[in-house]
Amino acid sequence: MKELTVDLGERSYPIYIGEGILDQIGGLFDKHGISKISPILLVTDSHVAEHHLAPIMGKLQESGYSVVSHIVAAGEKSKSLGVLEDIVTTALQAGLDRKSTVVALGGGVVGDLAGFVAASYMRGIRFVQIPTTILAHDSSVGGKVAVNHPLAKNIIGAFHQPEMVLYDTATLQSLPERIVREGLSEMIKHGLIWDAEFTQWMEDNAEKLIALDQEALQYGLYQGCRVKSIVVSQDEKENDLRAILNLGHTIGHALEAVANYNELHHGEAISIGMVGSAKLAMKLGYPEHIYTVTKRILQKFGLPTRIPAHLDTDAIMSAMMHDKKFKEGTMVFIIPTAIGKVEINKNVSTAWVRDVVEQLKQEA
Amino acid sequence: MKELTVDLGERSYPIYIGEGILDQIGGLFDKHGISKISPILLVTDSHVAEHHLAPIMGKLQESGYSVVSHIVAAGEKSKSLGVLEDIVTTALQAGLDRKSTVVALGGGVVGDLAGFVAASYMRGIRFVQIPTTILAHDSSVGGKVAVNHPLAKNIIGAFHQPEMVLYDTATLQSLPERIVREGLSEMIKHGLIWDAEFTQWMEDNAEKLIALDQEALQYGLYQGCRVKSIVVSQDEKENDLRAILNLGHTIGHALEAVANYNELHHGEAISIGMVGSAKLAMKLGYPEHIYTVTKRILQKFGLPTRIPAHLDTDAIMSAMMHDKKFKEGTMVFIIPTAIGKVEINKNVSTAWVRDVVEQLKQEA
Ligand SMILES: NC(=O)c1ccc[n+]([C@@H]2O[C@H](COP(=O)([O-])OP(=O)(O)OC[C@H]3O[C@@H](n4cnc5c(N)ncnc54)[C@H](O)[C@@H]3O)[C@@H](O)[C@H]2O)c1
Ligand SMILES: NC(=O)c1ccc[n+]([C@@H]2O[C@H](COP(=O)([O-])OP(=O)(O)OC[C@H]3O[C@@H](n4cnc5c(N)ncnc54)[C@H](O)[C@@H]3O)[C@@H](O)[C@H]2O)c1
Ligand SMILES: [Zn+2]
Ligand SMILES: [Zn+2]
Repeated sequence: MKELTVDLGERSYPIYIGEGILDQIGGLFDKHGISKISPILLVTDSHVAEHHLAPIMGKLQESGYSVVSHIVAAGEKSKSLGVLEDIVTTALQAGLDRKSTVVALGGGVVGDLAGFVAASYMRGIRFVQIPTTILAHDSSVGGKVAVNHPLAKNIIGAFHQPEMVLYDTATLQSLPERIVREGLSEMIKHGLIWDAEFTQWMEDNAEKLIALDQEALQYGLYQGCRVKSIVVSQDEKENDLRAILNLGHTIGHALEAVANYNELHHGEAISIGMVGSAKLAMKLGYPEHIYTVTKRILQKFGLPTRIPAHLDTDAIMSAMMHDKKFKEGTMVFIIPTAIGKVEINKNVSTAWVRDVVEQLKQEA
Repeated sequence: MKELTVDLGERSYPIYIGEGILDQIGGLFDKHGISKISPILLVTDSHVAEHHLAPIMGKLQESGYSVVSHIVAAGEKSKSLGVLEDIVTTALQAGLDRKSTVVALGGGVVGDLAGFVAASYMRGIRFVQIPTTILAHDSSVGGKVAVNHPLAKNIIGAFHQPEMVLYDTATLQSLPERIVREGLSEMIKHGLIWDAEFTQWMEDNAEKLIALDQEALQYGLYQGCRVKSIVVSQDEKENDLRAILNLGHTIGHALEAVANYNELHHGEAISIGMVGSAKLAMKLGYPEHIYTVTKRILQKFGLPTRIPAHLDTDAIMSAMMHDKKFKEGTMVFIIPTAIGKVEINKNVSTAWVRDVVEQLKQEA
């Protein structure tokens, strides 16, 4: 079992990574002083419940924990205030009190949703994350929790750090392949913004990662969490540095929106976005090989690198102009300056971005 | 203009109290660096809007602020996730960003609701309170913000401190008399738990306070806020000391619930509860005069001191047993040990409480 600490002073917490570590969940909960008197609420979604809920409930009960579960429909739609209210109904009926813990068993959707329940129930109770997607190595570090509003994603939320994260790589075996690949896209991003060596390692281990080789997964998740946690430790409340985590996301979010949040998955959209950032880097005078390498790696992982031709350039541009990263008219982009290095560039011209969007539609 | 600082380290903030201070709102906003570029969202309720919205909007606009308002229906029902979502719709349509400020213009309902919007919109933006009830001297200090769930009050919320509180006593002139009296009930509570001299002053100035004499109000609100702020400064996240603010509230909450939240207002219910606490104090061996004085003061303010006879004792007891202040079977009560002094007593027997409830139904 690998262990990593997210260093946030008083709010520091460990991430445990390993195959089958959920077998030891009772011991880990004991170690972290999770209450056996106050009930635990475990939140999960319909897909995850099918594969992983029963054994975990069993282990917790065996260890003397009192635990109740709430299963939401799988999918982004569950990240809503309505579902949050339903979960609180379950919490109240089960008698959750201030010493209770909310456990999120699932991907980023369940993590964000259950995390906001934990942040707001009685103004904040304890929270444990059990991520079951690869993308969740990203969402489980940093303490950002939220639900969506019909008009905007992640707009209602809080910062709420978990007590611990239990990453059991065995749970990933049941993931559909498309979800595996898009999760790896965020892992590549963590390499590209911070760590050239890790990026190289990912390229060399693409096949193993896609095949869910346990050892490769553990190393990759560890490094991905490590990068995210370094960035977050230095900037907990998102002032400046944390922006680098948005590599590929400005274009990516616009693509997701214009494709109506169904054609492109998040990890796919940011894959295209990262190619776009590398193209912008070239316009700014940075070496072409950043673009070449970025694209080559993403392709090795079977991730898309071109914008579907039917998406309208004007619509993409206008979705980007609404992105909150554009303060007072300035266009801010995360630009790779080398493999494993980025800068926050506040002077990217709209014309360049449009040009890159057009190129990405013609990309090989 | 009186000024008081709520001392919370980095999150310290001032409370300004005075007649007509809203005329200077522009200057006060400038002083606290409220953004003129990012839009302000002012939340208020239908009653308050009728009397006070237009002049405040006017002043802010005159001073160069861009401000949009959202009016909710008056009453506790507006403290819901549904109304929160509606307010966020307004916020998004108005383009509120991370540098925006939410202003609560109203009583405790608007303060709690708008405060939770500020706490959760984009994971937290700035917040200013403009209390317009006397009770809100209590709710505007301490940073507790929340909405209700159909099954429980204030169960979904956060701790979110305002940038400042602007208490313009002129706004209180439009309050219905019953709302004035119940607000004064919390002010009396602040005297009883902490300050014998202030308690005496309140007794001596009951008529002036009820008549909304501006000077008396300012002094009373200042002292009430001061007591609350001392307690909160010493215990921001509600661990121990802060419990003393619940004098009269265990019985009070039960009465509100059993009376279906319509017969008794909150301030009235805790008035009866405070008499009950003084009776429990006698059972614990504290002097009878605590009871005599407590009751005499509350009666001077025209506040109720007996439980309406038709409320069922069993129902009251059972509502109390569900109160979250009873941890793991122990009954905790805030007990006055002298005028201006209380203790947190964890050994109050259920039988005594039942006895006191019965007596309160027969009270003269
Ligand atoms: N809080 C943050 O910092 C942060 C960061 C990135 C993304 N996010 C959020 O994360 C969400 C996306 O996360 P995600 O991609 O994990 O989505 P997800 O949680 O919806 O999971 C994707 C799909 O995989 C299924 N699934 C999950 N685990 C499985 C398993 N082990 N076996 C079989 N199926 C499984 C889910 O039911 C779902 O259908 C978005 O809502 C995004 O906003 C948050
Ligand atoms: N956050 C806290 O620490 C805290 C503490 C105590 C109470 N509270 C909350 O406060 C709420 C009760 O506060 P409240 O008594 O101020 O209730 P309120 O906000 O509902 O106001 C009472 C009534 O007076 C009206 N009103 C308000 N100001 C007026 C004015 N100037 N002129 C005419 N009418 C006016 C309102 O429209 C309402 O009808 C409850 O929801 C309670 O949970 C919170
Ligand atoms: Zn992402
Ligand atoms: Zn109260």
